Amino acid sequence: MFSKETYIKRRKLLKETVGNGLILLFGNDENPMNYTDNTYHFRQDSTFLYFFGINRPSLAAIIDCDSGEEWIFGNDFTVEDFVWMGPQPTIASLASEVGITKTDAIYNLTKLLDKHSKERKVHFLPPYRGDNKIKLFEWLGIAPNEQAKKVSIALINAVVNQRNYKTPEEVSLLHKAVDISVDMHKLAMRMAKPGVTEAQIAAAVQEVAVGAGGQTSFPIIATINGQTLHNHYHGNTLKEGDLFLMDAGAEIPMGYCGDLSSTVPVSGKFTSKQKDIYNICLESHNAAIEMLKPGVAFKDIHLNSARTIVEGLKDLGIMKGNVEDAVANGAHALFFPCGLGHMMGLDVHDMEDLGEMYVGYGGNPKSTQFGLKSLRLGRKLEKDFVLTIEPGIYFIPELINQWSATNHNADYINFKKLKEYHSFSGLRNEEDFLITETGYQLLGKPKPKSIKDVEAEWTKGL
Amino acid sequence: MFSKETYIKRRKLLKETVGNGLILLFGNDENPMNYTDNTYHFRQDSTFLYFFGINRPSLAAIIDCDSGEEWIFGNDFTVEDFVWMGPQPTIASLASEVGITKTDAIYNLTKLLDKHSKERKVHFLPPYRGDNKIKLFEWLGIAPNEQAKKVSIALINAVVNQRNYKTPEEVSLLHKAVDISVDMHKLAMRMAKPGVTEAQIAAAVQEVAVGAGGQTSFPIIATINGQTLHNHYHGNTLKEGDLFLMDAGAEIPMGYCGDLSSTVPVSGKFTSKQKDIYNICLESHNAAIEMLKPGVAFKDIHLNSARTIVEGLKDLGIMKGNVEDAVANGAHALFFPCGLGHMMGLDVHDMEDLGEMYVGYGGNPKSTQFGLKSLRLGRKLEKDFVLTIEPGIYFIPELINQWSATNHNADYINFKKLKEYHSFSGLRNEEDFLITETGYQLLGKPKPKSIKDVEAEWTKGL
Repeated sequence: MFSKETYIKRRKLLKETVGNGLILLFGNDENPMNYTDNTYHFRQDSTFLYFFGINRPSLAAIIDCDSGEEWIFGNDFTVEDFVWMGPQPTIASLASEVGITKTDAIYNLTKLLDKHSKERKVHFLPPYRGDNKIKLFEWLGIAPNEQAKKVSIALINAVVNQRNYKTPEEVSLLHKAVDISVDMHKLAMRMAKPGVTEAQIAAAVQEVAVGAGGQTSFPIIATINGQTLHNHYHGNTLKEGDLFLMDAGAEIPMGYCGDLSSTVPVSGKFTSKQKDIYNICLESHNAAIEMLKPGVAFKDIHLNSARTIVEGLKDLGIMKGNVEDAVANGAHALFFPCGLGHMMGLDVHDMEDLGEMYVGYGGNPKSTQFGLKSLRLGRKLEKDFVLTIEPGIYFIPELINQWSATNHNADYINFKKLKEYHSFSGLRNEEDFLITETGYQLLGKPKPKSIKDVEAEWTKGL
Repeated sequence: MFSKETYIKRRKLLKETVGNGLILLFGNDENPMNYTDNTYHFRQDSTFLYFFGINRPSLAAIIDCDSGEEWIFGNDFTVEDFVWMGPQPTIASLASEVGITKTDAIYNLTKLLDKHSKERKVHFLPPYRGDNKIKLFEWLGIAPNEQAKKVSIALINAVVNQRNYKTPEEVSLLHKAVDISVDMHKLAMRMAKPGVTEAQIAAAVQEVAVGAGGQTSFPIIATINGQTLHNHYHGNTLKEGDLFLMDAGAEIPMGYCGDLSSTVPVSGKFTSKQKDIYNICLESHNAAIEMLKPGVAFKDIHLNSARTIVEGLKDLGIMKGNVEDAVANGAHALFFPCGLGHMMGLDVHDMEDLGEMYVGYGGNPKSTQFGLKSLRLGRKLEKDFVLTIEPGIYFIPELINQWSATNHNADYINFKKLKEYHSFSGLRNEEDFLITETGYQLLGKPKPKSIKDVEAEWTKGL
């Protein structure tokens, strides 16, 4: 937990920015797997963590922007609860650690809302958990399917404009999370041998994050089918010639995330065909890093990466035509259908549910073009932003077949040559960066990413 | 997945038992951690798995008991989804594997319900996920806080009366789940050494379950504070003299669970004081197993275990007075505040959200006495039930202080002698059993539980 003053300062700024009305912020509840009391690991809401730091289920907070009052609501435990949970601090004592003196039972939250909500604005963020949608319905009478329309844009912008800029104490925690993430990736590179299963690697990598006292920051991608971007199936066994792609990161107990990707040849050496594609991707990756600094639009860095990929694929005869035109027409998106990176912090896609338009585009609309519409970050970079760089090259048979059948972007794609790559799968690297006053800083210790370094790490696992 | 005929037969029996009306069964959705697209691992609803076998999010099913018609509703994926998820089978093809020919988009489920729900009974089970509560609200107009009152008892009983009796093919899967769970416990016994953290053991044990392609069947308890019954805090480091208690089990991909507990001395040898308590608990455990057979009420086995514990604690001078009276007054519950065991199957506490009254008590009410009210299973045992045996002895300082301050059950408890045990912590063993025609069968391979076997397993980790 940060100092009491940190949380007080954050809430003070929030109140000033929102200006008036009541701010209602939900903590998360325990989340059932297959029945109420059999729960997944508890994950507090990130915005609640940011402003209140309390990692306990079933809390809610109200901040009165006009009077400045702040409450945390929740129900205390009894001795009978202690039998099952062990002794628990009171909500009042937890709240006092973050500078809040008013606490009360949930029942009194509803009374407070009843008293104020008719004549005053109640600001709330988009709810993403069913349980919190139901609370919004029961407390404010807003039906679940009406809630998205009634969220407070003022509150969203205020939260985004605080959480987007990472303080030195946050950056130091992000370094820690990425350090653990690097250990996860080195282990995977050493383990990726013929006969090992995807599940075994995913399990061992998860152990690193959990054994460090945290969790994985998102469901691990550990696959020989890297062409599927969010592949969570772990049922395959690695074999000679496969590329093994892992996208995984650690979340430390205070909630900060790491997010890295690696691709390793299961045979220990990249084939010449794999080297060609890997190096195009790496060139695109390194070119993106070199562009990182305040004032540069991330969308331009993304498009530059796309051009680098098109140039590389042209050299291999897979693409053709004018590079600028190819990218303008979205032809690169057959191989690079996603974004170059995203903001990262307490969420691996930071504040995704507040809306990428606000977080990554400063309130401006996103492109609707296939590929570009998946770019989560487009705005001009600023000092203290934290983001990922993760270009990839993917050969997705279903997408290739669809484009090929309709001759989509046929001016830029050599579909005949492309047939040689149908079963190539896909690859990417990913690293995390802080934007500094003059450029960037790599978060965490370096991860093997050159062909030489990846092959050397693989060899250590022999 | 079981054979098509298995699922057809299960649904046929369900329709016959419920008799009339529409049965609405929900599958589960993906479950967000900190934003919509960052999800926990997917866990299908167990009753949905039992009747439909399809392990995919966001499905719902309707069974018309009168016409016999059966539908599965869900939305198919597009090529653009394949980019992120890989190619996915259609819902129609998944449904046909379990003998269902009618499938449709979710939108048409609401139309079907609109058409029928006014004049016909719609049976549904108690929803435990917020998202499904919202669907019930949107599809049938029943507000979340009204839903518990409107569940179908006929459907609950019909489901319980099928799922409570495990078939040989289910038992064979339960054996597999428990076998993996035994491996998890042996690993923990070998790892439980001074200087190791609870988190490291929990992580390594989770790796066994996940590496086998499954998950843990519930959040792991791995603690030096075994007196806290559901202790999920893993922040301590093990030290000489501690007892390390683990309660953990594997869930295999088809959803079946194992559930075991072990207690191991971190120094490798139980102290004489630890041995005394451990052996009382083990005697109670073994006595319970010997009573397992059809026709015996599990409540009587529980009470017999309680008496065994009281006798043992009397020998140590911690308890006193008449044993029968002590148990009748619930005095044992200071040390054994929970139940002896519970039904197990696709859920680790099988069907807990359908109501223990139905699952474990054949529809009869549970006791309200402290201790006995936490006994999840009381009914007469029948062939093909699967259950756990897990008596424990716990020294819970907060509860001891409460009882001592009020002289609660002072006729049976020697609070002065008990002071010597305030920091003892707690211990238990747990194993899983099938009730057979004449007695019982242990599920999975045997787990070390005698003092000799536990110490021997610990030694293997040196």
